[in-house]
Amino acid sequence: MRAADLAVSYPTVGLGTSALEAARLLAGADLPGLIVVDAAERPYTILPGTQVLRLAVPAYCQEDPALARVIDEAHADTFLRDLADRTVAECLPTPERELAVVAPDATVLEIAALMARTRSPLVAVVDGRTMLGAVTLDALLDRMLAS
Amino acid sequence: MRAADLAVSYPTVGLGTSALEAARLLAGADLPGLIVVDAAERPYTILPGTQVLRLAVPAYCQEDPALARVIDEAHADTFLRDLADRTVAECLPTPERELAVVAPDATVLEIAALMARTRSPLVAVVDGRTMLGAVTLDALLDRMLAS
Repeated sequence: MRAADLAVSYPTVGLGTSALEAARLLAGADLPGLIVVDAAERPYTILPGTQVLRLAVPAYCQEDPALARVIDEAHADTFLRDLADRTVAECLPTPERELAVVAPDATVLEIAALMARTRSPLVAVVDGRTMLGAVTLDALLDRMLAS
Repeated sequence: MRAADLAVSYPTVGLGTSALEAARLLAGADLPGLIVVDAAERPYTILPGTQVLRLAVPAYCQEDPALARVIDEAHADTFLRDLADRTVAECLPTPERELAVVAPDATVLEIAALMARTRSPLVAVVDGRTMLGAVTLDALLDRMLAS
């Protein structure tokens, strides 16, 4: 069982996609994260669901719990409206050191180790310059526990 | 809208639960993570799904992609069988510095900031010594985007 056997088609967003549209895709399809692709449809970055929240939450609130606490609900709604006017590229957090991407011949253990290390519940399977699809944590666990 | 309004009942595992049973619960119910409770049913640690993988993947494979690569499928199955003989407590990774727990009056923005910071798609809502339930990333996003 290799990555190529586990990969399934997975929706992607572009760097120019509106950040609100990206958040709606994640929520609407209950995805574990988003694959952001470049103009050549190759993974540019892979955002776990929790990091997609960074698109919506102001940086000063992310690091300081006390600040998040004092902002009232009316202001919180304002931040979300701002998302519609910004692209994914404009909201991206600092890129991860390691991209959650594997080659088609990666083993189940290799994928599991990468997910644990990068804390990404989603890895893209890339063959040279072509993305074959993605493996989710749920799909990987189902496969590991079935054997 | 506060944490208490968003909290829903969520399955928990104990420190003495078999690690295999914990992994099966995560996979079987497609949960975003596990809440590990102590003897008093209070959250001891909250494991995002990707960190539950650490229960199953040997430490030396997690940090060294080359080692994960050379272990063949037969050996990978052996690691999973070992899980049945170990408890969650025996497999737990180093505890996170910050527990993904909020008070019942936490705001939506506060929960979102905590999820982004701890990289946990799941927070427990705790009132003093009692766990009221949990808020998942999906539920939080649905609430944020509905407004």
